Amino acid sequence: MALRMSTLFLRTLREDPADAELPGHKLLVRAGYIRRAAPGIYSWLPLGLRVLRNVEAIVREEMDAMGAQELSFPALLPREPYEATNRWEEYGPNLFRLQDRKGNDMLLGPTHEEMFTLTVKDLFSSYKDLPVSLYQIQTKYRDEARPRAGLLRGREFIMKDSYSFDMDDEGLDESYQLHRGAYQRIFDRLGLEYVIVSATSGAMGGSASEEFLAVAEIGEDTFVRSPGGYAANVEAVKRPLAPEQDASGVPAAHVEDTPDSPTIETLVALSNERFPRADRAWAAADTLKNVLFMLKHPDGTRTPLAVGLPGDREVDAKRLEAAVEPAEVEAFGDADFEKYPQLVKGYIGPGAATGGALGLDADGKGVRYLTDPAVVPGTRWITGANAPGRHVYDLVCGRDFTSDGVLDVAEIREGDPAPDGSGPLTLARGIEMGHIFQLGRKYAEALGLQVLDENGKLVTVTMGSYGIGVSRAVAAVVEATHDELGLCWPREVAPADVHLVATGRDDEVFEAADRLAEELEAAGVRVLHDDRRKVAPGVKFRDAEIIGIPTIVVVGKGLATGTVELRDRRSGERENVPLDAAVSRLVEIVKA
Amino acid sequence: MALRMSTLFLRTLREDPADAELPGHKLLVRAGYIRRAAPGIYSWLPLGLRVLRNVEAIVREEMDAMGAQELSFPALLPREPYEATNRWEEYGPNLFRLQDRKGNDMLLGPTHEEMFTLTVKDLFSSYKDLPVSLYQIQTKYRDEARPRAGLLRGREFIMKDSYSFDMDDEGLDESYQLHRGAYQRIFDRLGLEYVIVSATSGAMGGSASEEFLAVAEIGEDTFVRSPGGYAANVEAVKRPLAPEQDASGVPAAHVEDTPDSPTIETLVALSNERFPRADRAWAAADTLKNVLFMLKHPDGTRTPLAVGLPGDREVDAKRLEAAVEPAEVEAFGDADFEKYPQLVKGYIGPGAATGGALGLDADGKGVRYLTDPAVVPGTRWITGANAPGRHVYDLVCGRDFTSDGVLDVAEIREGDPAPDGSGPLTLARGIEMGHIFQLGRKYAEALGLQVLDENGKLVTVTMGSYGIGVSRAVAAVVEATHDELGLCWPREVAPADVHLVATGRDDEVFEAADRLAEELEAAGVRVLHDDRRKVAPGVKFRDAEIIGIPTIVVVGKGLATGTVELRDRRSGERENVPLDAAVSRLVEIVKA
Repeated sequence: MALRMSTLFLRTLREDPADAELPGHKLLVRAGYIRRAAPGIYSWLPLGLRVLRNVEAIVREEMDAMGAQELSFPALLPREPYEATNRWEEYGPNLFRLQDRKGNDMLLGPTHEEMFTLTVKDLFSSYKDLPVSLYQIQTKYRDEARPRAGLLRGREFIMKDSYSFDMDDEGLDESYQLHRGAYQRIFDRLGLEYVIVSATSGAMGGSASEEFLAVAEIGEDTFVRSPGGYAANVEAVKRPLAPEQDASGVPAAHVEDTPDSPTIETLVALSNERFPRADRAWAAADTLKNVLFMLKHPDGTRTPLAVGLPGDREVDAKRLEAAVEPAEVEAFGDADFEKYPQLVKGYIGPGAATGGALGLDADGKGVRYLTDPAVVPGTRWITGANAPGRHVYDLVCGRDFTSDGVLDVAEIREGDPAPDGSGPLTLARGIEMGHIFQLGRKYAEALGLQVLDENGKLVTVTMGSYGIGVSRAVAAVVEATHDELGLCWPREVAPADVHLVATGRDDEVFEAADRLAEELEAAGVRVLHDDRRKVAPGVKFRDAEIIGIPTIVVVGKGLATGTVELRDRRSGERENVPLDAAVSRLVEIVKA
Repeated sequence: MALRMSTLFLRTLREDPADAELPGHKLLVRAGYIRRAAPGIYSWLPLGLRVLRNVEAIVREEMDAMGAQELSFPALLPREPYEATNRWEEYGPNLFRLQDRKGNDMLLGPTHEEMFTLTVKDLFSSYKDLPVSLYQIQTKYRDEARPRAGLLRGREFIMKDSYSFDMDDEGLDESYQLHRGAYQRIFDRLGLEYVIVSATSGAMGGSASEEFLAVAEIGEDTFVRSPGGYAANVEAVKRPLAPEQDASGVPAAHVEDTPDSPTIETLVALSNERFPRADRAWAAADTLKNVLFMLKHPDGTRTPLAVGLPGDREVDAKRLEAAVEPAEVEAFGDADFEKYPQLVKGYIGPGAATGGALGLDADGKGVRYLTDPAVVPGTRWITGANAPGRHVYDLVCGRDFTSDGVLDVAEIREGDPAPDGSGPLTLARGIEMGHIFQLGRKYAEALGLQVLDENGKLVTVTMGSYGIGVSRAVAAVVEATHDELGLCWPREVAPADVHLVATGRDDEVFEAADRLAEELEAAGVRVLHDDRRKVAPGVKFRDAEIIGIPTIVVVGKGLATGTVELRDRRSGERENVPLDAAVSRLVEIVKA
């Protein structure tokens, strides 16, 4: 049955909504596909729901085709399984927690590793039962700190999550590759330009992991690529340690007066002015910048962290966040400085020898100090002397100070070498569409999922975890495909194939359009029929443009000569076809 | 693609699960359709999910056919709209409430009147836009005090809820009738024996309301029917007031010693022994029983309530609960008696003239006293005298005492007259499958949903609210259709059309079965194929019986003579058909 604009629950808006930031998100609201119900929480209006179902259908078909089986877990879950895997706590404030009327702790599921693991444990017991891959397409919850970007980062969202269960690592690798292939087919069908990049595994635990990113300027993820084929999310880039240096000729460290030089810029300028060196000018890269943070751990405790890195690099907030998960990063504020009087803002440095305030003692006390891979034994630095207006020069790593470990959280820059030597990196942005993990045995161990092997011995099962953001995919498709006029759907996800526009005042026009709509539906073509009387053609055309159905058919003036006009929404190309050939021509276009 | 038992995520159980009470629920667990995740919260395994989707599809088709439009609201909702309609409080402990990381109050939607109302307000503004009926099929939450009966009363469940929006009462009535018709078609297609009964409207507010009950012994709802066509949920039965009596000849009330007679039974026995009357013996119906309860109101306060009714009737707990909603009924305990020393347990009675302790004074103080429709002016009673071991006789309603109002919460009994005079009532039990309400303007008023009428005047919209328990329908179908061997699905909701069982050890059997499965799927017949090797035929047949797919096809010994056996799961009828005629015969059976 054709959708009819005269009765459809739809209103298009002329103005951009106040609560939308991204161009595609604005269009989804303006074109009447979605509405915001609360921050990060959306309602799907009839057209939006159709698109969502189309995306779901693609995901379902490809998951079924790879042999995964669909089931459906609740969203409201008891605490106990998440307690067993420690995620009740580790998830921190991202988890929606609540209590039922009896005071039992419950949660709204962010992902369902625990439930899948327990259910496989309940049903299966033998190597003969494996491998198995299970999935669901389900509403999930995550209490994002900054829900923005519309459907791209919701607090209630729809996700396909699947899990593979295998006897051994080779089996896991096979299941992982099957998912990888299915994901490629899914994102191909969605018409998205995407890259597959190495990723960190985050709060999920586990080892190998890749992300599918839709390439998009507005994406929240930054990824890098090299000419030699290296590709990774910036969070996952692991820069190798710099080669150690011979510092035997470096003079002893010496503290100098460096008044009013609390920033790298002022320090470099002052150093070149007061302490110039012969061979070349001091540069930011000669300084060791020490940046302080507070880590808030899932149990609520806060501990300080100092990160030392060359002064020409910044700490990348997202790389840092990924590196310290499940802890959260907070600013090191004035109140924190008061608690650590040895830290002098703007003049912080490591090294007990120089009265340094960073680094843990044997008892683990002090401020944990982690350094960039560029800070290796033999490298020499200008850095803070832990006194107002004073810096230390010729401070050599390994000789004059050590750190508590390596932390690679400096920003990645265009032109940095790929870690695998495959050439200089280029940076781009993307939207995380899918994530595949080799989880390993973390969840199976925590929840006791073991099966008997061929020799009757109990073996812990190894798992993979695979997600696709289904509602997010709708937004990603929109961001990738819209134009200045409005939405512009790829045919497979469009809410209809044809937007039929009847123009004019004559009954014959509307009757002819009605008949055409019926014939098209009978031929398997999905029609949105603008059958509104007394609405100006200009309004109807603008609606058709913003709604973005791939083919627009105009039934109007042409009828006098027995023709209708077909317009391609994206290219704007038009063709006139005889009314009685319209159905066959449109079937041809739709099935192309 | 046929489902294959060799890989299907399914295990049938020999034993009944400990956490299931109802026969059908036990079978759903044993046959591997569902699993309990928490009290009242279930996971859908692959076969169960197929059944659920089939039920959803029936509901969706009929809702679409009646012109309703599907959309989808979030389950996690902000407090504000529910505050505006007072449901945040009125829903009491049945509402799952939580706070997000910023401390905002949120809830898990039990029904979505508020969201639909607000969204119509957002999109529509004119009489030209109406009528409109909108629906969703969505996961809902209700924190039931006693989640039992499996899917019949879950805390997370799937519901189709729809709402109609009209300009006036006639429009509402039309929308209501459209829904009523769609519901009849839905329940017909589900193969359920059901009745449509008058209902109370509960916490929803509103006026006219009917329930669709699947007739079932294990149902939680009791309904009544009369030969003349009256049908109502017992909660909705409104007994008429008894005719007033002439009490001019009744002597003055007199208090008598009635030691050790705190129950109706002992009081009647004692009265007949000590104070016999000439014309006939005292009976329980001559006594006025006063039963005390505490009402717990949504705001947490508790107030006492006394219900006076003839001693031969009991208070029906569900009728009382329905009558006092949104307050909850609690027992009147010893601690409560201590707070009201004028109430003497076993000897409570009304009437200030006799030192009565029931009834409110002009300031609304005292114990609120409501009486049965049988307690009308002129009726005379034996009742408590508010002193230990003492009752009052010839206490006349209207003369010696009054009540604060009528409350019709006595049990309805087989043979009671129908309120509309259509004959004696019979009682039966049923499962509430659907509920249709004429909500009226309550929500539109609370949330300001007005549209312009033809004269440019703002008019408050009138609404209907219509629900079907989709996951509950799965359970209701099971309870109505299973037999002693297992599940026994109606074809339209069955997870497959044909359960193909390959028996024996020969490769030819399995190859023939594989081919047959493929041909059947190609012909549009949905197949569950038991392709397991080394599993005994007895086990396979037992699985087929408990899984309950309507047609079982055995590929085995018959192959030697070129035949397969077709079994009807319900009747047990068998027929042998040539292998090469099997597909056409099965298509015939399936499409019948």
